[in-house]
Amino acid sequence: MASDQPLGLLEGMATTRSIRRFRPDPVPVTDLNTMLWHATRAPSGSNRQSFRFVVLRDGPRAVQARALLGEAFRAEWADKRRLDGYGTGSGSDPGSRKGRMAATMQQFVDRFEQTPVVVLATNVRHRAPHVTDGASVYPACQNLLLAARALGYGGVITMWHALVEPQLRACLDIPDEVMLAATIAIGRPEGHHGPVRRRPLGELVYEDGWEQPAPWAEDPPGTRFTGAGPASLRRGTP
Amino acid sequence: MASDQPLGLLEGMATTRSIRRFRPDPVPVTDLNTMLWHATRAPSGSNRQSFRFVVLRDGPRAVQARALLGEAFRAEWADKRRLDGYGTGSGSDPGSRKGRMAATMQQFVDRFEQTPVVVLATNVRHRAPHVTDGASVYPACQNLLLAARALGYGGVITMWHALVEPQLRACLDIPDEVMLAATIAIGRPEGHHGPVRRRPLGELVYEDGWEQPAPWAEDPPGTRFTGAGPASLRRGTP
Repeated sequence: MASDQPLGLLEGMATTRSIRRFRPDPVPVTDLNTMLWHATRAPSGSNRQSFRFVVLRDGPRAVQARALLGEAFRAEWADKRRLDGYGTGSGSDPGSRKGRMAATMQQFVDRFEQTPVVVLATNVRHRAPHVTDGASVYPACQNLLLAARALGYGGVITMWHALVEPQLRACLDIPDEVMLAATIAIGRPEGHHGPVRRRPLGELVYEDGWEQPAPWAEDPPGTRFTGAGPASLRRGTP
Repeated sequence: MASDQPLGLLEGMATTRSIRRFRPDPVPVTDLNTMLWHATRAPSGSNRQSFRFVVLRDGPRAVQARALLGEAFRAEWADKRRLDGYGTGSGSDPGSRKGRMAATMQQFVDRFEQTPVVVLATNVRHRAPHVTDGASVYPACQNLLLAARALGYGGVITMWHALVEPQLRACLDIPDEVMLAATIAIGRPEGHHGPVRRRPLGELVYEDGWEQPAPWAEDPPGTRFTGAGPASLRRGTP
């Protein structure tokens, strides 16, 4: 950051992009500690603090786990790239949004094992799995990404660990009653943070009932819109 | 905030407490808009932006929905207060942590209908319910709470809408394929924000495998610890 002022809370949220291309710079453990400490300030059900973060750097099992993930990601992306036509139409233009997304994804999976830090976010269950269990771990994941941003790093959440979940559990000794909530890649961004693209606010906010417009919901001047991204992204790109 | 500087990103995360006691001040729609805009900057699966926020202020259905929620919360809290012994042991001392928690909860449920703003966070499903669905909505909920904090408000997430979910869906016309992710109460805090209490970081962060210590994980000087809160809180207090 150029300024001496710390990044503001609102500005930080508005400019934290998903980062999938990383510089090779290592992440000092002091920074990692700061990120995880802020992650764990997030709320959780009954303040039970059921979130646990398994950090994968260069330990022997971390190397195995990263290899498992990397291989799975590459296979999945190769399938998706083909099935979703990333090599055809606008996807064949490297300057198009779709083309740039494809190049970014390719680099993310190709270099996954070299990601400076991989954090596996988990949640220790206290009951049978429920669709709202994530309320106790995803707020902390968001804090982790925001804290990374505050320190000049960036990251992305992916769910593609699900492709090799049994192997990953075996490799890292993660018990069955623990939910694998997210794989979070973190490092110094090759690209830049900046404003994110979202649907117009009026499509996301209702008042007094489902699909009832909130007349006051509007984007500040200069907000960049988007739809849901290329159609091909709607099926599970991390 | 006393200072002219905006609240910093890291400081904001470290000092956003769950707020359950609100001053009656209304929340201007410009502030509500700013909060929800920042909420929607959060990531979601494939940037699908499947989160939708239903704002409940003083519209006719909002009033009904708040009454449904308030009644259910009061009944649930009355049961819990009794079953979990909030009137006995340290709970009978109004100055104890348990006693203060009980008083706060009592006020939260007693005045729920007067909560300045209630936001129902929802997620439009694109597949059968899955335990990781929350990855597309709870990061936005966390941003909402942080943005509230940045503007001098506070809030709390509760899951107790589950007690009256069918009635709430009927009242607000929320389709079955939409997940009710969280009820978030927002207003000007009666109390104060400040450092949160969490377990020592070393209990929450592992490296290279489940329950393997991360030797570098340590709380900064001055961090206040806690266990998981009073035992009686472990069964689902919002």
